[in-house]
Amino acid sequence: MHTDLVVALDIGGTKIAGALVDGHGRLLVRAQRPTPAREDGATVLRAVTSVLDELARSGRWAAASAVGIGSAGPVDASRGTISPVNIPGWRDFPLVEHVRERVGGLPVTLVGDGVAMTAAEHWLGAARGRDNALCMVVSTGVGGGLVLGGQLHPGPTGNAGHIGHISVDLDGDPCPCGGRGCVERIASGPNIARRALRDGWLPGPDGDVTAAAVAAGARAGDPIALASFERAARALAAGIAATATLVEIEIAVIGGGVASAGDVLFDPLRRALRDYATLSFVRELVVVPARMGTDAGLVGAAAAASDLPAGGHSLSCVPPRS
Amino acid sequence: MHTDLVVALDIGGTKIAGALVDGHGRLLVRAQRPTPAREDGATVLRAVTSVLDELARSGRWAAASAVGIGSAGPVDASRGTISPVNIPGWRDFPLVEHVRERVGGLPVTLVGDGVAMTAAEHWLGAARGRDNALCMVVSTGVGGGLVLGGQLHPGPTGNAGHIGHISVDLDGDPCPCGGRGCVERIASGPNIARRALRDGWLPGPDGDVTAAAVAAGARAGDPIALASFERAARALAAGIAATATLVEIEIAVIGGGVASAGDVLFDPLRRALRDYATLSFVRELVVVPARMGTDAGLVGAAAAASDLPAGGHSLSCVPPRS
Repeated sequence: MHTDLVVALDIGGTKIAGALVDGHGRLLVRAQRPTPAREDGATVLRAVTSVLDELARSGRWAAASAVGIGSAGPVDASRGTISPVNIPGWRDFPLVEHVRERVGGLPVTLVGDGVAMTAAEHWLGAARGRDNALCMVVSTGVGGGLVLGGQLHPGPTGNAGHIGHISVDLDGDPCPCGGRGCVERIASGPNIARRALRDGWLPGPDGDVTAAAVAAGARAGDPIALASFERAARALAAGIAATATLVEIEIAVIGGGVASAGDVLFDPLRRALRDYATLSFVRELVVVPARMGTDAGLVGAAAAASDLPAGGHSLSCVPPRS
Repeated sequence: MHTDLVVALDIGGTKIAGALVDGHGRLLVRAQRPTPAREDGATVLRAVTSVLDELARSGRWAAASAVGIGSAGPVDASRGTISPVNIPGWRDFPLVEHVRERVGGLPVTLVGDGVAMTAAEHWLGAARGRDNALCMVVSTGVGGGLVLGGQLHPGPTGNAGHIGHISVDLDGDPCPCGGRGCVERIASGPNIARRALRDGWLPGPDGDVTAAAVAAGARAGDPIALASFERAARALAAGIAATATLVEIEIAVIGGGVASAGDVLFDPLRRALRDYATLSFVRELVVVPARMGTDAGLVGAAAAASDLPAGGHSLSCVPPRS
């Protein structure tokens, strides 16, 4: 594992990033294109092949033994297709097949971006050495991934860990996903800002109405800004506690723009967790900030390719039953 | 696997049951004692050893190669201890050590009762052949267990799948567990009955105020009884959808007394599931009644002992990273 290089791709609505990643998680060669998100599918694919072509011009390309793709979801690892919400030209788009052709038959692993981030935190970040972990990104949306029994758990389609769309308020506000009271509907950056504005929070002279500005207000003691973070923290706590109660995790790692608010988020989150993580086997659960930076998607895509056989299914070696 | 016999124990607040279970899930020899739940721990232990002694008098005992214990929770499989809520004489009681001594060093596996029921449904019941499943008991309480990637997932302490105590209503009623708005607080039999009575449901001339009586009222068209089941169904749907969204399950199996209400529960549950299981990778999720009867605890304890190495940890064979 990790003695060869892995070709990593990070597919998002803003950029398509690629790298050759070594066995220590170092990005030896990089390439990047803006995502032509409003164009047709063939045009978006050309941006991917252009990234791969640039990487292939490196002398190190020949040492690559696998490809890992982390993509904005939904993905379907079982079929090798992706349908990123923010790239309308790709719906059930067979990205794995196209990439496999381009890389001469190397094994290709596809996972969702939350799973990729989790693989990175587990390999080299805040979940390192932990056998059971939830890793999350709280930003424009809320995503996540799971490590169970020491292994990444992408699930059959590569989407497991989608904590942003579990309901913690069954009578709550409708969520764009079609559900109600989802964690994301309460705790994402735009929802923190929306709730603060609705409740009378006044932005500063710069007119910044993002969650970062609300966080600054909360740090300065603004009660409405504090209340909006408190509400987000409760929703995150209920979702994290639900995850721990369902699958037994020992640590929750939180990254993303909203997490960079620091104590303004983590203090009420840790308090609220005591209200929801009540059973004996989840009471020791800790919540910590993520450690991997903006390269987590690429490092994690590489880790996922090393962790899993191609296709995204997790390895299992239980003898068959008689 | 399953070519030898397994000694199975099912520890509950009412009875302590034991059996020798063969590789086809047949209970070849049985023994049972009432649980002296109000007595001290040593007295409760004597009921267990008495069950084991009776099984040991069978000529088949010598073929036993392992012991599986399913117990009312909480359990701690990592330490081999149990603290069943309804058996106050046992707190952090080292049951595994006591049983191991009694059985001459055979490997002993301990799991929670929800995990045991899941192992039974996966082996021989409604989750057979499914690689990713949630199995639940909806009764006086709400319990459950998970099959992930084709294997039972008890978690490090044997408690995973505790769906009854995830919050689906973060501002909801306090639950005896210390949380709020837990699935069990809304969907258990006693809570279905409590809500119906509170809202004006009138029991029949027999004075039966159980959830079974409310179910009969619902079948006869009583709107308050129907509404109480509808509310329970929504809470179950939100919890099942959360589980599917977090770990990707393809089927939810529901047993227990409340599930025996049949369509009165399953019809609104399947409707509500469409409101909460919204993401592409969970839309195909099906919900079905359990198939294993009252022996599920014993069959499942045997299955868990065959599925897992002693100690309750799931097997993993990913090569270590360099």
